[in-house]
Amino acid sequence: MNVLIANPNSTEAITAACAAQARAAASPGTEIVPWTNREGPPAVDSLYSDYMAGRPLAMRLAVLDPRPDAVVLAGFGNYGTGAVKEALDVPVVGLPEAAMAFATPLCHRFAIVTTSPRMIPYTEDVVQAFGFAARCAAVRAIDLPPITAGDPPADEIVASLVAEVRAARASSGVDLVILGGARLAPHAAALRRRTGVPIVEPVACAVAMAEALVRLGLGQSKIGKFAPPPLPLGEYGGIG
Amino acid sequence: MNVLIANPNSTEAITAACAAQARAAASPGTEIVPWTNREGPPAVDSLYSDYMAGRPLAMRLAVLDPRPDAVVLAGFGNYGTGAVKEALDVPVVGLPEAAMAFATPLCHRFAIVTTSPRMIPYTEDVVQAFGFAARCAAVRAIDLPPITAGDPPADEIVASLVAEVRAARASSGVDLVILGGARLAPHAAALRRRTGVPIVEPVACAVAMAEALVRLGLGQSKIGKFAPPPLPLGEYGGIG
Amino acid sequence: MNVLIANPNSTEAITAACAAQARAAASPGTEIVPWTNREGPPAVDSLYSDYMAGRPLAMRLAVLDPRPDAVVLAGFGNYGTGAVKEALDVPVVGLPEAAMAFATPLCHRFAIVTTSPRMIPYTEDVVQAFGFAARCAAVRAIDLPPITAGDPPADEIVASLVAEVRAARASSGVDLVILGGARLAPHAAALRRRTGVPIVEPVACAVAMAEALVRLGLGQSKIGKFAPPPLPLGEYGGIG
Amino acid sequence: MNVLIANPNSTEAITAACAAQARAAASPGTEIVPWTNREGPPAVDSLYSDYMAGRPLAMRLAVLDPRPDAVVLAGFGNYGTGAVKEALDVPVVGLPEAAMAFATPLCHRFAIVTTSPRMIPYTEDVVQAFGFAARCAAVRAIDLPPITAGDPPADEIVASLVAEVRAARASSGVDLVILGGARLAPHAAALRRRTGVPIVEPVACAVAMAEALVRLGLGQSKIGKFAPPPLPLGEYGGIG
Amino acid sequence: MNVLIANPNSTEAITAACAAQARAAASPGTEIVPWTNREGPPAVDSLYSDYMAGRPLAMRLAVLDPRPDAVVLAGFGNYGTGAVKEALDVPVVGLPEAAMAFATPLCHRFAIVTTSPRMIPYTEDVVQAFGFAARCAAVRAIDLPPITAGDPPADEIVASLVAEVRAARASSGVDLVILGGARLAPHAAALRRRTGVPIVEPVACAVAMAEALVRLGLGQSKIGKFAPPPLPLGEYGGIG
Amino acid sequence: MNVLIANPNSTEAITAACAAQARAAASPGTEIVPWTNREGPPAVDSLYSDYMAGRPLAMRLAVLDPRPDAVVLAGFGNYGTGAVKEALDVPVVGLPEAAMAFATPLCHRFAIVTTSPRMIPYTEDVVQAFGFAARCAAVRAIDLPPITAGDPPADEIVASLVAEVRAARASSGVDLVILGGARLAPHAAALRRRTGVPIVEPVACAVAMAEALVRLGLGQSKIGKFAPPPLPLGEYGGIG
Repeated sequence: MNVLIANPNSTEAITAACAAQARAAASPGTEIVPWTNREGPPAVDSLYSDYMAGRPLAMRLAVLDPRPDAVVLAGFGNYGTGAVKEALDVPVVGLPEAAMAFATPLCHRFAIVTTSPRMIPYTEDVVQAFGFAARCAAVRAIDLPPITAGDPPADEIVASLVAEVRAARASSGVDLVILGGARLAPHAAALRRRTGVPIVEPVACAVAMAEALVRLGLGQSKIGKFAPPPLPLGEYGGIG
Repeated sequence: MNVLIANPNSTEAITAACAAQARAAASPGTEIVPWTNREGPPAVDSLYSDYMAGRPLAMRLAVLDPRPDAVVLAGFGNYGTGAVKEALDVPVVGLPEAAMAFATPLCHRFAIVTTSPRMIPYTEDVVQAFGFAARCAAVRAIDLPPITAGDPPADEIVASLVAEVRAARASSGVDLVILGGARLAPHAAALRRRTGVPIVEPVACAVAMAEALVRLGLGQSKIGKFAPPPLPLGEYGGIG
Repeated sequence: MNVLIANPNSTEAITAACAAQARAAASPGTEIVPWTNREGPPAVDSLYSDYMAGRPLAMRLAVLDPRPDAVVLAGFGNYGTGAVKEALDVPVVGLPEAAMAFATPLCHRFAIVTTSPRMIPYTEDVVQAFGFAARCAAVRAIDLPPITAGDPPADEIVASLVAEVRAARASSGVDLVILGGARLAPHAAALRRRTGVPIVEPVACAVAMAEALVRLGLGQSKIGKFAPPPLPLGEYGGIG
Repeated sequence: MNVLIANPNSTEAITAACAAQARAAASPGTEIVPWTNREGPPAVDSLYSDYMAGRPLAMRLAVLDPRPDAVVLAGFGNYGTGAVKEALDVPVVGLPEAAMAFATPLCHRFAIVTTSPRMIPYTEDVVQAFGFAARCAAVRAIDLPPITAGDPPADEIVASLVAEVRAARASSGVDLVILGGARLAPHAAALRRRTGVPIVEPVACAVAMAEALVRLGLGQSKIGKFAPPPLPLGEYGGIG
Repeated sequence: MNVLIANPNSTEAITAACAAQARAAASPGTEIVPWTNREGPPAVDSLYSDYMAGRPLAMRLAVLDPRPDAVVLAGFGNYGTGAVKEALDVPVVGLPEAAMAFATPLCHRFAIVTTSPRMIPYTEDVVQAFGFAARCAAVRAIDLPPITAGDPPADEIVASLVAEVRAARASSGVDLVILGGARLAPHAAALRRRTGVPIVEPVACAVAMAEALVRLGLGQSKIGKFAPPPLPLGEYGGIG
Repeated sequence: MNVLIANPNSTEAITAACAAQARAAASPGTEIVPWTNREGPPAVDSLYSDYMAGRPLAMRLAVLDPRPDAVVLAGFGNYGTGAVKEALDVPVVGLPEAAMAFATPLCHRFAIVTTSPRMIPYTEDVVQAFGFAARCAAVRAIDLPPITAGDPPADEIVASLVAEVRAARASSGVDLVILGGARLAPHAAALRRRTGVPIVEPVACAVAMAEALVRLGLGQSKIGKFAPPPLPLGEYGGIG
């Protein structure tokens, strides 16, 4: 089957990194098709960029030809997840919902560590909007520079992550941590080693969930919230 | 003071109707400035159109010149309310949050009546996202045709609204009803007369809240969720 | 219009201070009418004094002649807010509900800072009873002496407030603070300057909300919780 | 031990009825001491009367001499329950909290049936304020005339109660019902017989809880919410 | 990989049916290993049988040799799911948590239809205990006879299910339904056809989740709630 | 009346200690009948042992002859509390529900201190399952060795408890603490003295509640969640 890995931002390096993780997680027989939201912002680091990303993301994915068997939205946010679910008939899976759906049976309470303090309220809203607040004990953040500035050395990032994981464990009693951002995913293994805490990497979860949905013949319900919009999609605005 | 009434959709007739209501509600000395989201969809009737609306809405409002003293987002939804709050320093008020903020002290529990059954889940999510779920006992809907098809006669709309208000009162014990959609606002007075139930019309509430915020020197907090995005706005995507 | 500023306690100095703040916040054309609950306690600093205040407050306001256009209950508590809403047909606005209604759209999460540690549980109950718990991340307190002992120097109070605001921000991630007590209101501006955190002063919010309700023809719903009591008010107990 | 049965309203017949029920429920060796809130309203049938009751209730109970070993507040409401807990060192038990505390371990979800539709929102607020909302599936009401008009024949009341119990069971799946009002208590046995549903009568629960607290040396915690008010009680207002 | 399908009850026919569904859902290369809890009760139809099932289930699975790669607990309940997660190092997946984890991203709100009215409260508790209450709008039931009495004809069961699905949709606005019991699973396809509502069959979800966890190297966190018990398992009681 | 004190574990010393506390708390005329779950585990210190305890507990109590007038389940956990309530017609009271039912009216928020850090998530689940989460502000733990290793000196235990009580008070503002474990009960008085915080000892509460239920003719509702299981109990599995 083909699973499209749709990066909601326009940064090709992130697309490539997500695709690599997706391939590492995919079952034999799954083809990972990377896709970049070229008209989107370079990063989703704010509510403003969330909406800047969501419009072209939904528009372009709605007219993909050929259709993939499933779509993974490869960012830890919202940026129109529901809009894409409305527009498409194939299963659409967001990173946060896949990660939290897998984490919930695996732990008592989880924490999410995200990429910058300003994304904490954004992420708390995502947790609640996606229906998983009951088991999310904390959202914490390290403090990466803007994506355009490049990432610090890996060991610096890991050290920051270790500190946040330990703080989440000490203050909120969490027994599992979700990495809330594509830029953090490469550090999952090191973080697991350093802390002994189970670390959930969302791209892998989303690919696994997408594969499972396709295999089981499931997808977002089209009789309620995610029903096709009332007008033909083209009437909501042209591309460009 | 100048209060911009920003219609998130591209339908000028809705802009005009909202502006008229806004003017009727405004204090002496408030100038209502109507604004239409020309690059937006004809209506926000789905999650897809929510995101189609939000990007141009946030982009264009961010570069308005001259700046109004406050902005009212004149649709009963989300479509990037938080994105606009990030992008602007002047107070930004959405219809649902203004209506619910005024309704909460006035009643035990309120219901919202919206324009079509498919907007019920959308509206339930808006209620929760904006923090007012504790007092919202029900979201119900009449069933208006798509905005492009025009509205049925007023007495038909009112009859449908009366039925929903009575059903909300009977089944959920609500003692106040919010009209959840700009197309419903003109019928507030008739509905109040017919049912004896207090009806809250959101445009009026939002104008009043905007005026109050300006007068009191308040606005969305810029030190947390609504802080300016990390990059210059232009780097998130060009206009057009 | 006339807006009555009803101080639930018997301390005239508090009435005068609230009236001054109310006048500073009022629109042109609004007349602020101060009123003191002479049979009430010197302060509402406990559940006991809450009920000591509420009975004469509700009784006396119910028979005011002439009726004001709206009533602001100028204390940060309950003391019969619902009783007054039942007894009167004009809009009745409490400080906590007005402050929280304005704060909710302006922030991710707010904190309330009150006047003494023992008022923390009282205030937490008020937050929940008034329906705003979803966005209230913390209630904290400085430690003022009893009202009868007079206030410490302003800079001491401000220093204590600064410490609590910073603690709320650090531990609960709040991006806005409400001053939960009439004695704290004069320090709002200094606190804002010192911390950079938006500070909401409740008297101003309540006056603005009262004015808006009058202008919009809204008031507490009289068909449910706030319907007039079943018996003539005089049958519930005489004055004196 | 002496347990004071404090009727928050001024209607002696209610006091007598509650005292009779209390005596029937009391252990050997417990003396039931009836007490009527003579300065209170004839009934607590509204928020207004709640506050009319609470001030004299708290004031008079605070100076009782000799002190009873425990106080039962014999009405299904609030009327200053917390104020009395602050003012007294002996255990103070309200009917709703005792009934809900006993009901919670006995069922999956309970309903409360109260005496008039207008008391539904009041009672819902009481349920939440006292911390038992998790298990309360419904508050319903029959429609008794005002207390001053006297009660309809017992079989009419029972028939109405039977209808509400059945409706609560059918629509909310409750497996236990609490009678929410002193006027309903005499009909508990008939209602149980007619419906087969366990009926909890609050006066009996409150007496049992009061006895247990005295025997176990427990009482409301005096180090937090129910600590004595900061000023001597007399400074909050004279009696009369 | 080997996935053990552990039927918590002792009825081999249920084991066989679950194994068949599991095989239909499994990926190529997954071997489904059926297992029956021979010392368990014939059905888990009550809290009593839940505990009758859980002890031998946990004891026997703890000493399985050879260990499977993952365990699916093939009943729609609790019966010691957490105990098995403690006792084993391989991933353990319960039907309700897998079904709800998959359903949550696919819909606005789901309903669960279970096998008998008395299992409604049991199932409501399972939903809350497993952390998915935010999206579960209703638990409803058809009324199957005890498992020992055999099942009615398929079309009768389907007709009952259709009625409950429609009722859930009409009264609670759900857009997806989970079948809450192994006896209902064979009717998923017919129910989907008849109602047009997406039907989630839990065995398939649990197999898919188990496969995904094994492939991703995830399992229940062993550093908190599901850490191995403090004593060697044998000290908690012998087998038999 | 006879009240059975059923120790869910097999450690006779705990049975004896609980029985002693029960006798100290019982009313004159109540006979405390100690009972040990001989086929149970030596302690309930995990989810695994919870289920190891629950099966023989429910089976043996179901066939007790003669029946006691009420049963107290003397451990701070679940271990089939609902199963026993189903199996028996006499009132069944668990320690946590009795302690929380008594604590709720006595305080603003309570904390529970349990015997080991790994029991914190277990206890948090118990609090939620039994319906008392609204008032439980924290679950904390000291760190006792396994029951088979014996207890440290009393003053060490008390010192640890004092530290946790103070921490709960400082960080969560609790004004009452429940001792969450039979091994902690003997230290209640010392802890109260040392901290000044009201300490609720669950055995005493459960005995008092059991006595009250018997006297009032109340017991768990047998028409819903706790109805007798559908099959004769013997069909769910033999004893042994």
